[in-house]
Amino acid sequence: MESTPATATLLISCADQSGLVAAVSGFISDSKGNIVDLEQHVDSSEKAFFMRVEWQLDGFHIARNQIATALEPLLTRFDMQWSLHFSDIRSQVALLVTRDSHCLYDLLSRHQSGDLQMDIPVIISNRTDLEPVAQQFGIPFHHIPITADTKAAQEEKQIALLREHKIDTIVLARYMQILSADFVDHFPNQIINIHHSFLPAFPGARPYHSAHKRGVKIIGATSHYVTSDLDEGPIITQDVIRVSHRETVSDFIRKGKDLEKIVLSRAVWRHLQHRILVYKNRSVVFA
Amino acid sequence: MESTPATATLLISCADQSGLVAAVSGFISDSKGNIVDLEQHVDSSEKAFFMRVEWQLDGFHIARNQIATALEPLLTRFDMQWSLHFSDIRSQVALLVTRDSHCLYDLLSRHQSGDLQMDIPVIISNRTDLEPVAQQFGIPFHHIPITADTKAAQEEKQIALLREHKIDTIVLARYMQILSADFVDHFPNQIINIHHSFLPAFPGARPYHSAHKRGVKIIGATSHYVTSDLDEGPIITQDVIRVSHRETVSDFIRKGKDLEKIVLSRAVWRHLQHRILVYKNRSVVFA
Amino acid sequence: MESTPATATLLISCADQSGLVAAVSGFISDSKGNIVDLEQHVDSSEKAFFMRVEWQLDGFHIARNQIATALEPLLTRFDMQWSLHFSDIRSQVALLVTRDSHCLYDLLSRHQSGDLQMDIPVIISNRTDLEPVAQQFGIPFHHIPITADTKAAQEEKQIALLREHKIDTIVLARYMQILSADFVDHFPNQIINIHHSFLPAFPGARPYHSAHKRGVKIIGATSHYVTSDLDEGPIITQDVIRVSHRETVSDFIRKGKDLEKIVLSRAVWRHLQHRILVYKNRSVVFA
Amino acid sequence: MESTPATATLLISCADQSGLVAAVSGFISDSKGNIVDLEQHVDSSEKAFFMRVEWQLDGFHIARNQIATALEPLLTRFDMQWSLHFSDIRSQVALLVTRDSHCLYDLLSRHQSGDLQMDIPVIISNRTDLEPVAQQFGIPFHHIPITADTKAAQEEKQIALLREHKIDTIVLARYMQILSADFVDHFPNQIINIHHSFLPAFPGARPYHSAHKRGVKIIGATSHYVTSDLDEGPIITQDVIRVSHRETVSDFIRKGKDLEKIVLSRAVWRHLQHRILVYKNRSVVFA
Repeated sequence: MESTPATATLLISCADQSGLVAAVSGFISDSKGNIVDLEQHVDSSEKAFFMRVEWQLDGFHIARNQIATALEPLLTRFDMQWSLHFSDIRSQVALLVTRDSHCLYDLLSRHQSGDLQMDIPVIISNRTDLEPVAQQFGIPFHHIPITADTKAAQEEKQIALLREHKIDTIVLARYMQILSADFVDHFPNQIINIHHSFLPAFPGARPYHSAHKRGVKIIGATSHYVTSDLDEGPIITQDVIRVSHRETVSDFIRKGKDLEKIVLSRAVWRHLQHRILVYKNRSVVFA
Repeated sequence: MESTPATATLLISCADQSGLVAAVSGFISDSKGNIVDLEQHVDSSEKAFFMRVEWQLDGFHIARNQIATALEPLLTRFDMQWSLHFSDIRSQVALLVTRDSHCLYDLLSRHQSGDLQMDIPVIISNRTDLEPVAQQFGIPFHHIPITADTKAAQEEKQIALLREHKIDTIVLARYMQILSADFVDHFPNQIINIHHSFLPAFPGARPYHSAHKRGVKIIGATSHYVTSDLDEGPIITQDVIRVSHRETVSDFIRKGKDLEKIVLSRAVWRHLQHRILVYKNRSVVFA
Repeated sequence: MESTPATATLLISCADQSGLVAAVSGFISDSKGNIVDLEQHVDSSEKAFFMRVEWQLDGFHIARNQIATALEPLLTRFDMQWSLHFSDIRSQVALLVTRDSHCLYDLLSRHQSGDLQMDIPVIISNRTDLEPVAQQFGIPFHHIPITADTKAAQEEKQIALLREHKIDTIVLARYMQILSADFVDHFPNQIINIHHSFLPAFPGARPYHSAHKRGVKIIGATSHYVTSDLDEGPIITQDVIRVSHRETVSDFIRKGKDLEKIVLSRAVWRHLQHRILVYKNRSVVFA
Repeated sequence: MESTPATATLLISCADQSGLVAAVSGFISDSKGNIVDLEQHVDSSEKAFFMRVEWQLDGFHIARNQIATALEPLLTRFDMQWSLHFSDIRSQVALLVTRDSHCLYDLLSRHQSGDLQMDIPVIISNRTDLEPVAQQFGIPFHHIPITADTKAAQEEKQIALLREHKIDTIVLARYMQILSADFVDHFPNQIINIHHSFLPAFPGARPYHSAHKRGVKIIGATSHYVTSDLDEGPIITQDVIRVSHRETVSDFIRKGKDLEKIVLSRAVWRHLQHRILVYKNRSVVFA
């Protein structure tokens, strides 16, 4: 694949008010930036404004490390929350796994074939089942077992490891441990989970068993940011597949695996592209 | 559309055991019945057997009104629950509505164009909003208002009216009253409801508002048989559509209407074709 | 439904160049317009720019009938193609039908329940089959039969009728006549057709029969603007549904009807909201 | 996963006639076989009958190697085409690949995690790009380059290799060479291909480019058995995903990869379960 020229992406949210798009797009065009993508969203019931704008760095009159400073008056004037990203800076992603391999295989094969712009410095697991998969793909694997008694201490170990590797994104690829509120607080909107149901239906354990018992005709999977409320974080993306009375719980699990890996990787892809803003426990996912 | 030759349809459920298919298909072929459709389902965890078999009456050696008697030994031997239907006997369907017109329009236009094999002798409503729609399609409309105080008496009126018209199927086409357990008991697996969410997510009132607040990325609709547990009856069919952060509650409602009318009419179509068996609050929906 | 305040919508397309978003959004914010929706799209391979911006008229400093004039310098400077619309001006829509009723019923019931912001001054048909449906909904019905010999003359009659009623949008709701290139030229990007296949698969006549013969596992429907190339115009929206070997051509037709009516009404809805731009035989459909 | 008891599966097709289900199910129940799954299909326009019946070998009175002989009178009487399979005999599958890795990764990870009941004795490629992936999963990789001049000889090499490994199923996992009619004739209904479009739309090369140019709103993927007519073989399964004007050809390719791997693996799964019958270039895919 040919390399594409580097771009800057600015994510903004603030109270809705007149002149926001004009001000931001004016800032960029005044310094000869060519906008390649701009999306804004106004939530009129919340009177909130959201924007993602991406422009080419090539030809832009402000140096990369000066952009934030140059933006400051604008950001202050409108009291904006913001973040700035560069397309050639790769995210540092940690994968947390337990026993199920399908999401791990899927993410690793996408990584290896270059379909996800990220580095994976570390895979962490509370079990050793998937160590061979990590080895197969040449990624360092850390076994950090967790019991009720050791949880606090082991999470500290995890956090230390994540900090050491400068991890900015944590993907729970069917990680079967509940993270403590303290752990989650360290990584706000940086932890992506895949839940194997169409949330808010069937939160918690064994959703396929519950779905089968209820006799639903469609099952789903949900990727979301992790908050301290289990399975209650902002939803990023969801997908579904039809099932019938013919199918057993095992069939649900088999079909669901395909959903899970696709839904998780789509969420990771969007997150890595800085296309997601979170507010009031909902997500704005720019196309 | 050319008329198709009449068929008999036998629906059976019983405990699973050897020789069931052979016995039933043998009964039909011994009397020179030509099977046009046969589906069976074994739920191995419940050790339950379900079957739908449809055969041509033309050339069948047993007269229509003798089939039940002829089947009796077989049904007794295997302790089967069963029902027998003839394709040229039309179902008598009552529609219960309140204020939203989309499902009513959809069912009436399908009925008028001959796409649903049923008679609609009566439309019942607790309000008068949709009386003009009933008139437009020439169907008798009965206004039976219901308050907390009058509920028992008014439901008796409804039941009398349904009995008078020999109604075998009741379709709640966005009927905004909760039926009493007593009413429901009169029509087991004969009342079809449409709920405007992907059950079991968002039961009860205002599901689109709840879905919007939760920030889901897909909304749904669910048709189900009505039981005395609100929104808990056996699911017949479900469908979904994607939504995004751009869409307001009004957009959810607008998109959801299309789901509701399609999902409800699919359920009615299958019900009228005698393709549905219910057990343990789940449905077997033959294709 | 409460009435929403009137908005102006500007649709723009031109060659891509720096400063476009800033210029247009600046124009609006300089006159105190509050933008409620803005979407832009850059087709980088075509170097083409597209934009839809909607702002509240309330508080905007330029009078409605002065906006076009005020915009002129901007439009000239960037050599923009443009159109300007007001949300409280209803489109005038003609429906052309032949024999199949499902799309007609669907559009008329949406119209009657207020879900589509349009007037329908006239229904035109080459047959009389659907006259009762038009009467049922109180819409004038014009029977204009067409044979190979009379085609040119009858199309002139149609055009005169459409002009008389100031029709701006023509919906072919399963109209089974091919419009002449001359007719089409009178209404560029104003005629919406529904084709009962997943184009470009199965263009032309009897697509369900062809789909069945080919043994596809999914069937579809496609709404598109009509051009002089049959079934080749810019696609607006498509949808699909699964089918199986169990299903006959009649089943395909039955399931397809649901697709057709939904896909057609979605296209009409977006067209009425001025969300569609056409270029190089493709459509930009803003969300 | 616990091991399930072995079953026999009989696939039958013949001219439709009375008594077929009774005869086959009678054969099984007479020898005390417990049917766990039975599906039949009558194509009334073709007057053709299809059946798949699966029964437990445990308790069945006829020894495994005697079943075919015992069935012979029945098969002869109805002039049936048939095949018999045992659930504990694993299929021998060869993968043919070229350069794209996503389908290969997907099949190998499913294989390694035990989700597909098959052995993969050999991977064959006309290039060496994917040799590292084969090594990663420990599967022998054979590089058999093909040019116009060497094609006949190299295909003979391929056939010899496939025969040597007793291959019964060949999966073209984005293999970018057209197989000769002669090669195909050696493996009727045994070669499964994935085509990266919603066939019959966009056959041949570069379907995503064609889809983008046509401006479709949905793209698809199709798995099918390979016949000597390119992209014209019996379709096994298809799936689709929505696209919009925002998406480039690269986006189509990225999204399409997910479709391709899912659609291909579903086809392989059904094929391995002996759920597919082919007639008149169409497939009967039992649920």
